[in-house]
Amino acid sequence: IVSETTPGKIDVWSAFSPLAGHVPKDALNLGQGFMSFGPEPWVLEAHNAALQDVMANHYSLPRGRANLRQAVSKYLSESFKLPNGRQLDANTEVQITAGANEGMFAFATAFLQPGDEVILFEPFFDQYIAQVTFNGGTPVFVPIRPPANASTSNVSAKEWKVDLDELRKAITPKTKMIWINTPHNPIGKVFDEEELRGIGKVAEENDLLILSDEVYDCLTFGEEHVRIAALDDFWKRTVTVGSAGKSFAATGWRVGWAVGPPNLLTPLMAAHTRIVFCVNSPAQEAVASGITQALENGFFDRQREEYESRLKVMREGLDQLGLPYTIPDGAYFILINTERLEIPEDFEVPDMIAQRAADWKAAWFVAQTAKVVLIPVTDFYNKAHWSLGEKYIRIAFCKDEDTLRAASERLLALK
Amino acid sequence: IVSETTPGKIDVWSAFSPLAGHVPKDALNLGQGFMSFGPEPWVLEAHNAALQDVMANHYSLPRGRANLRQAVSKYLSESFKLPNGRQLDANTEVQITAGANEGMFAFATAFLQPGDEVILFEPFFDQYIAQVTFNGGTPVFVPIRPPANASTSNVSAKEWKVDLDELRKAITPKTKMIWINTPHNPIGKVFDEEELRGIGKVAEENDLLILSDEVYDCLTFGEEHVRIAALDDFWKRTVTVGSAGKSFAATGWRVGWAVGPPNLLTPLMAAHTRIVFCVNSPAQEAVASGITQALENGFFDRQREEYESRLKVMREGLDQLGLPYTIPDGAYFILINTERLEIPEDFEVPDMIAQRAADWKAAWFVAQTAKVVLIPVTDFYNKAHWSLGEKYIRIAFCKDEDTLRAASERLLALK
Ligand SMILES: CSCCC(=O)C(=O)O
Ligand SMILES: CSCCC(=O)C(=O)O
Repeated sequence: IVSETTPGKIDVWSAFSPLAGHVPKDALNLGQGFMSFGPEPWVLEAHNAALQDVMANHYSLPRGRANLRQAVSKYLSESFKLPNGRQLDANTEVQITAGANEGMFAFATAFLQPGDEVILFEPFFDQYIAQVTFNGGTPVFVPIRPPANASTSNVSAKEWKVDLDELRKAITPKTKMIWINTPHNPIGKVFDEEELRGIGKVAEENDLLILSDEVYDCLTFGEEHVRIAALDDFWKRTVTVGSAGKSFAATGWRVGWAVGPPNLLTPLMAAHTRIVFCVNSPAQEAVASGITQALENGFFDRQREEYESRLKVMREGLDQLGLPYTIPDGAYFILINTERLEIPEDFEVPDMIAQRAADWKAAWFVAQTAKVVLIPVTDFYNKAHWSLGEKYIRIAFCKDEDTLRAASERLLALK
Repeated sequence: IVSETTPGKIDVWSAFSPLAGHVPKDALNLGQGFMSFGPEPWVLEAHNAALQDVMANHYSLPRGRANLRQAVSKYLSESFKLPNGRQLDANTEVQITAGANEGMFAFATAFLQPGDEVILFEPFFDQYIAQVTFNGGTPVFVPIRPPANASTSNVSAKEWKVDLDELRKAITPKTKMIWINTPHNPIGKVFDEEELRGIGKVAEENDLLILSDEVYDCLTFGEEHVRIAALDDFWKRTVTVGSAGKSFAATGWRVGWAVGPPNLLTPLMAAHTRIVFCVNSPAQEAVASGITQALENGFFDRQREEYESRLKVMREGLDQLGLPYTIPDGAYFILINTERLEIPEDFEVPDMIAQRAADWKAAWFVAQTAKVVLIPVTDFYNKAHWSLGEKYIRIAFCKDEDTLRAASERLLALK
């Protein structure tokens, strides 16, 4: 039931995509989180090899191709810390999905009944709201608050905090699940063990399911990524989703995975089977080979270092600009606080997006003035809280360093 | 809301897939409808070229890549017979979906409210039920009846008929839409203009939406494929879905399209955006190039001839076997009537699928005895009508002729 999305209302990704033609064509795109580079050549070779195999062009089993499920198990088992060091069962504890996005949608389809409430920490990745409401659920928002000085100085993503009492107060008899996201989009926060344990305990006390969106799990800087499913006894109530798009710079391949206990994955698979039936088969084979090779050639460590270096370059640029920002510990986003950005009174937003002019104004101003596309963050907040989101615009630094340097230069036009 | 699918209940595609390990490994697979051959080399080359283009590995716009939307418009516009010979608007009248399957799911998500009724002609492609119920809808079944002599002699798919009075009687104030499927899976019926006009009029009289699943539109034998959206004034209430998987022997690519008026496609896109965000990008580029090349090199005609020839080979085999069957006018399935198939009293169905033993017995017997995997048709019927489905098993002839001949030979073991 498409209740939340007014037909015709433009989504933030399309509005701020040069492809859709609203923002200046010559703008540098640091908006939507995709890379300016593609998958490694050895992953592409594996993809092409799959295309030459007749059966790799046809339906996969709904649960996903055996090679990929096995590769995911090999890749992730250790981090889930299962009893006695056992591996994830590739047949019953790994489900391949059409991007992590469809995995989350299928989870909502599988477990929500009309009226069920879902705790979303705010800001949240904008897709969550519709994934919940389209499946009859009602989102309930619990804030992740920035520190008081976030409008005047740089802050660490660690300082954005969830208040567990506020979480407890948000729980009602209708609450069915809690959705978490770590590393967090757009904050860049990597939740630590204590924070996750606090949230997990609340879920446990109220017998709630947990959906953990960990699509940026392989992109943390200095911090160790902790999975809530690996703590205490939370495994049995948690589905964790991950993404080949983020892990292999292939956001357009739409390959993701969901990991969890069989009693949660079986209904998720039932939903997935009817929603998409199965995932693009040759891309699954490519990712299976990509994971296997990456575990041998050290790709994930190399990639992490490259992102750390990109972050450094981007921060140098932002330091020159002088607007305060949040220093991320993971993912590839930086939130810029725009409270001190001066937008001329008479700056006009084009008709095309006038319905959203007020809350998208800062990002629009940046696109027009600096010719750099960034993402306004209001869509990451409940509509009633847009004023919080209006303070921030998000920069994606999943780009080659030359692009980041060029963007930094252009952003100086805002000074 | 996964209400119809008992977690753990095995779906017919997985139960009868050699990949899942239930049927004999050395069986010939004429069950699930995928080809024993893959996409043409020039389509695969276009796919590999797309992989070499960085941006073709990243997110597409939710509505789909421009190249593919334009190619679909070029390919299909004529058949939709729009006023003054105008073309489909590639920006507003073509939506790319993750297979036609996800297009149908998104249509249901976009337009169904809890309690809405959806007319399904029975037998129906098994996915429809869950696509309707997961989105809060209630399926209402209207039979497509075989002729009286179908258990004793071969019949034409044309003789399977919808009774328009029965259709009218099934309509209630809650009816929201009618789903049709032509060429029809599993009957192989190509609805003619008169039949479609009759159904369309009922939709018009009751102001219903029409979802027309035409994934086999390029595979008709002798019959002209007619689109209900091209008749009278039905365009404005109809969304038509199509499939690259079927058109290019790439069932695992998960690329489909939905064609219709902007007021229907905009909500469909809103649903699609939240369900999967976008479709595998390099495969979209490959299909775009595939369509463009096919329109020049005559591929679709050649392919149609190849399927006609496959049908001929398969019919020769079935004629030797002597069980009566339905002669299809389109798609790549033949329904075999099994009322005269003799199954020994003591034939046992393995535990693995014992929950479905009774209604799947004939197909299971064929798999074990002839080592040919076919699909039982009960899942294409409402549970209350399984006894109708039990009379049929479905053979998919989208296989190379050697395989069809080998299967025919093996099937003689049933005599
Ligand atoms: C739904 S597309 C955007 C996904 C993403 O990675 C982002 O937050 O930019
Ligand atoms: C859902 S997979 C099966 C699809 C198909 O084409 C069939 O009917 O065999």
